[in-house]
Amino acid sequence: MSEGWGGEGWVGADSAHMSPAQFREHGRAVVDWIADYLERVEDLPVLSRARPGELRERLPAGPPEQGEPFAAMLRDVDELILPGLTHWQSPNFFGYFPANASGPAVLGELLSAGLGVQGMLWSTSPACTELETHVLDWLADLLDLPAAFRSTGAGGGVLQDTASSATLVALLAARERATAGAGNTTGLAATARLTVYSSSQAHSSVEKAVRIAGVGSANLRLIDVDDDLSIRPESLAALLTADSAAGAVPVMVVATVGTTSTTAVDPVRAIGELCRRYGVWLHVDAALAGTAALCPELRWLHDGVELADSYCVNPHKWMLTNFDCDAFYVADRAPLLAALSILPEYLRNAASASGAVIDYRDWQIPLGRRFRALKLWFVIRHYGAAGLRAHVREHVALAGEVADWVDAHPALERLAPVPLQLVVFAHVDGDVATQALLDAANDTGEVFLTHTRVRGRLAIRFSIGATLTRQRHVRAALALLDRILGPSATSPYPVGAMP
Amino acid sequence: MSEGWGGEGWVGADSAHMSPAQFREHGRAVVDWIADYLERVEDLPVLSRARPGELRERLPAGPPEQGEPFAAMLRDVDELILPGLTHWQSPNFFGYFPANASGPAVLGELLSAGLGVQGMLWSTSPACTELETHVLDWLADLLDLPAAFRSTGAGGGVLQDTASSATLVALLAARERATAGAGNTTGLAATARLTVYSSSQAHSSVEKAVRIAGVGSANLRLIDVDDDLSIRPESLAALLTADSAAGAVPVMVVATVGTTSTTAVDPVRAIGELCRRYGVWLHVDAALAGTAALCPELRWLHDGVELADSYCVNPHKWMLTNFDCDAFYVADRAPLLAALSILPEYLRNAASASGAVIDYRDWQIPLGRRFRALKLWFVIRHYGAAGLRAHVREHVALAGEVADWVDAHPALERLAPVPLQLVVFAHVDGDVATQALLDAANDTGEVFLTHTRVRGRLAIRFSIGATLTRQRHVRAALALLDRILGPSATSPYPVGAMP
Repeated sequence: MSEGWGGEGWVGADSAHMSPAQFREHGRAVVDWIADYLERVEDLPVLSRARPGELRERLPAGPPEQGEPFAAMLRDVDELILPGLTHWQSPNFFGYFPANASGPAVLGELLSAGLGVQGMLWSTSPACTELETHVLDWLADLLDLPAAFRSTGAGGGVLQDTASSATLVALLAARERATAGAGNTTGLAATARLTVYSSSQAHSSVEKAVRIAGVGSANLRLIDVDDDLSIRPESLAALLTADSAAGAVPVMVVATVGTTSTTAVDPVRAIGELCRRYGVWLHVDAALAGTAALCPELRWLHDGVELADSYCVNPHKWMLTNFDCDAFYVADRAPLLAALSILPEYLRNAASASGAVIDYRDWQIPLGRRFRALKLWFVIRHYGAAGLRAHVREHVALAGEVADWVDAHPALERLAPVPLQLVVFAHVDGDVATQALLDAANDTGEVFLTHTRVRGRLAIRFSIGATLTRQRHVRAALALLDRILGPSATSPYPVGAMP
Repeated sequence: MSEGWGGEGWVGADSAHMSPAQFREHGRAVVDWIADYLERVEDLPVLSRARPGELRERLPAGPPEQGEPFAAMLRDVDELILPGLTHWQSPNFFGYFPANASGPAVLGELLSAGLGVQGMLWSTSPACTELETHVLDWLADLLDLPAAFRSTGAGGGVLQDTASSATLVALLAARERATAGAGNTTGLAATARLTVYSSSQAHSSVEKAVRIAGVGSANLRLIDVDDDLSIRPESLAALLTADSAAGAVPVMVVATVGTTSTTAVDPVRAIGELCRRYGVWLHVDAALAGTAALCPELRWLHDGVELADSYCVNPHKWMLTNFDCDAFYVADRAPLLAALSILPEYLRNAASASGAVIDYRDWQIPLGRRFRALKLWFVIRHYGAAGLRAHVREHVALAGEVADWVDAHPALERLAPVPLQLVVFAHVDGDVATQALLDAANDTGEVFLTHTRVRGRLAIRFSIGATLTRQRHVRAALALLDRILGPSATSPYPVGAMP
């Protein structure tokens, strides 16, 4: 190959591959770039101000014929990419739910990429599978999850990319169980109509899974919610009874511990008792909130979770492990494996045939899988249980501060309880004023907040959870909102009087 | 928090977070660790010799209460993890299909993890979406894909994790189109029986997708193959006619360009013409082989691909981009979006409402997505088109050398054509001798080969594609096989006479 674009190569002098020496040099540059980025990210406008097409106009129309120096890529990241980013790692990011990363997680991801092993089968890299099983047992310890979810029993844990995939995989296992396999073999055209249940507050991934699995969105029953936006068990019972009477087969109920809109917590125990009575699979989606169970004083969130057939929590949301990392547990792995296990000749191997090992490809949609457990292992070991708990407690306390501020502000009304790290509120003058407040805050670039609707009212979500967020960032955000709302005698944080 | 486990924190002195200074230090250690690993990986036993449970026995039963120093993690990677790995990045890895990584890809992955942005919507990080669209147009250029797959028309590209997910997403779009949406709304229990078609040689992910989507594995029709293990179009035509006559609705045909077992290439043009005639979705799975289309002399592989409704290729297999990175293209994005788009209030935003942007969450199973395009961008720019082509040509030439060696060896028989980088062969004495040869080779730790079955015969797959693989590694592997097979007058590589 040409000598113009790379040097010695990993092996041999005639290659364009990046050599180990070059990898060391460029790798340091990227590590330093990230460290620099994290040092300055709080000063960048949180929400990107790019307009549609702006980046593409600045990129070459076609790929280069010859290779380019690595420095050119890093320069373009600075000049072209950075202005087009919304900074999820900014301490001033209060939008959606957090997708928080941390040093040990990022380095675990790097190591996983550098090793480049495949964990589809135990035999394709035994440590990749065994570390995952082990760390998921550790996580079950940390969150005090039921014994049935440990690898020592009939169930166990597996890492998925997201809670969306976890919900889908749960539905596939539930469908397998409810149809005695017919859904997978003869297909749903030959089965009775299937039904799935969640509250109106559940994540959109429930409807997505219901569509993908061929159940049909018309067969997703939305359960009525109580004043606190959690499922009313009697409403669920009525739906289950009516659907069964109509000849449908109820397949799965999704209970949400910490809804996306308001962190409402469904009554898992009451729902679980109904599911047992009706023989319906219970999936508990604790994608954000499950992390709170690190702290014993917040484990009321998980009350009744021992009645669940499956459960998920996303360490990539609030447990300092960069996306993607969803921990999914089942109480019984048999229907999951029956639904997803297919063994072509080219994947047969002695270890799998022995039955002594886990092959995680049978626990997920894709076949291939990377070594995701490394980053979670690094995070748990770097922080320790004590550090992880301290992180959660800090954010919960900060959310309490925001809630108190909202409650004390005459122009604002809080629209939902604050069990965790999310405060949902509106302007008392209505949706137009709420939207104006939200837009004005986001337009400054100093914060990023997102919205939802609560009982029809537009609401602002103040969601705390970025790794870098500290008290001073939250207080600065409140001061900003105060400035926008104008002087108020009763606000505890008048302009210019920040503690 | 305790001062014992971390130092100053990203921000503030009272945190256990890894500080930027610590991140620089530990990041360099990990970069160096990876460079060291790549320098020594060729000397490690390729296939792990771990026995089931070996790693878990050496790990602490529970998570640590207090954090640990980063050096402890890296030490455990060396002492505990490394012996449990099968080294996919070893130049002596000839198993399965490659999952090849490269310096620029690994650093792109690192940067993606460090930035930690979400690309679920254009608005959640515009550059994440726009770079992906742009790089996928570049890739379409590089592979000379049809105009319909570019973002400038009705279709476009998106990165999925794997070809398994691409096949599933294609099936969901096909199902949407074939049922005019009913599959997603009323569910499959209310539709006619659906049927899907692939050859017996297609990847297991086709059956997995058929199961997941509720079509049912009994409705996956396996098309007869020709002597070269490619689909016989007349067999497909007969199946389509018979199924339609029986009241079923044919939904999708999967044509494979480069099967997993033998890199057989289905006749895409003839299949595509049938699909047009019957109104059936054609998905082309070129997961491994699509990369070869970088080279004009290998583009015959793609003959007829302009008749496809969707197509995928995995840069994470043979295009130097670490797992996961599957490039999936559709000729018309409308049925895909109709199948997968769900818009809850908390994701509404002005850019999406304007219709001027792409929201990739509607093109995939999960909602969240990381900044995968960075690594593919880095790879294309680092190597340039010329470097990528040189890489493919080197491996194709090496496979030719292996094929010649097999053909010349009296004890071996080649069982399939070698269009690309895979040579499939057996011992002339039958399966027992083939298994003995495979086991003896793998037991040395000097190489790793896997197997398949071709027309019932056990066969060894010699698959070339690791980034580090050079001629000397292939020749050493052939010399090893020669040693195992014993002296042979006609072998061109007798023991002790390596060129």
